[in-house]
Amino acid sequence: MRLFYDSTITKDLTEFTLNEEESGHACKVLRLKAGDKIAIVNGKGDYFTTEITEPHARKCQVKILSCTSEEPSEKNIHIAIAPTKNMDRIEWFVEKATELGITEITLLLCKNNERKVVKTDRLEKILVAAMKQSKRLYLPVLNVLTPVNNFIQSHPNGLIAHCYENEKGTISNLFNSNKCAILIGPEGDFTLEEVEFANKNGYRAIDLGKNRLRTETAGLYACMQALVGS
Amino acid sequence: MRLFYDSTITKDLTEFTLNEEESGHACKVLRLKAGDKIAIVNGKGDYFTTEITEPHARKCQVKILSCTSEEPSEKNIHIAIAPTKNMDRIEWFVEKATELGITEITLLLCKNNERKVVKTDRLEKILVAAMKQSKRLYLPVLNVLTPVNNFIQSHPNGLIAHCYENEKGTISNLFNSNKCAILIGPEGDFTLEEVEFANKNGYRAIDLGKNRLRTETAGLYACMQALVGS
Repeated sequence: MRLFYDSTITKDLTEFTLNEEESGHACKVLRLKAGDKIAIVNGKGDYFTTEITEPHARKCQVKILSCTSEEPSEKNIHIAIAPTKNMDRIEWFVEKATELGITEITLLLCKNNERKVVKTDRLEKILVAAMKQSKRLYLPVLNVLTPVNNFIQSHPNGLIAHCYENEKGTISNLFNSNKCAILIGPEGDFTLEEVEFANKNGYRAIDLGKNRLRTETAGLYACMQALVGS
Repeated sequence: MRLFYDSTITKDLTEFTLNEEESGHACKVLRLKAGDKIAIVNGKGDYFTTEITEPHARKCQVKILSCTSEEPSEKNIHIAIAPTKNMDRIEWFVEKATELGITEITLLLCKNNERKVVKTDRLEKILVAAMKQSKRLYLPVLNVLTPVNNFIQSHPNGLIAHCYENEKGTISNLFNSNKCAILIGPEGDFTLEEVEFANKNGYRAIDLGKNRLRTETAGLYACMQALVGS
């Protein structure tokens, strides 16, 4: 059954009008007809089996036949990462992290960012496509570019990956899935001031192995380790 | 110090002529001169500090000043993976797996491959660039497209990731780094015959989590789990 996404579909409904984009995809591109069954997810854990009642290229009507729900993962993985100069690289991070089961992504504005502006529309689309592709029922939260010090203050006691000499632990030892953000710096690393500010706010340094990883690889590696670890 | 790659440089030398491609990069692109120091790696664990004696756009001569060596990783990670229809996807797998420390990659020809032909020149370049970027001293081995049954026979007792219902273990429990290849199937999965042939040859099935992963994400996830695990 074809899968569609609309964040506004809720459990109390019996009928629903699909948003314009997905209506277009269902009725114009795929030419689905009245009586065809489609699945709709809301990215909040609910999966609806529905039947098209009125196909329409902008407002396709469906009847809701059944709904199943899934509890959110007990692992809350929030990675705050500086966007790469080359957008392709951060885009694949977003895609892969979504497939794997990340909960939340924040884009960080650091002193050494080569990229100081990011449009999130395209990243949002990648999130939705990767959620559908991997059959996840939860859409990760994507937060716009946030100055790193603001982020640290609002999310204290996290983990930080940087390349300075320092006592470092591993994600498997230090990660706890409850409010423990993981910070991944820009291509030129965090500044010493940023690292010290994190330390002051309860951050601990993590070691991502002996190879020098690109920003997006470090982000994905951290995500995978957090998923596998405790 | 700028880093160059030439597989033919060995420890017993005192002078060396860099290959044409790297000579061009050093002397034509970067315009390095006699007396400039450059580092050269051979992808086999040796790192040479050298000094340019005769800059030349096709055969740059260097004097070897010193050499340090590194033992290969005790983890032998060999992933055999079906190439994706879209080459970008398998290219990033190769890049990321190299950054993380994979030992060997074999491209698999399976019944359901959408791509039956792969040129490896570009993948070889990606391997070298990722090795340099991540400061690894070992270049992973890349093997050309190999029919899956041939591969299984020559590498028995490995692990296989497929989507059929089956008793499955996890990489952290089943992986042992000594001659334990990990098989990742094509976008349409392995056929039942291929899975049975693997089973007959001592393969055990692994579970890559509840999300449906794309081929290249499955490959990278397996690589990371093998690195982190026992």
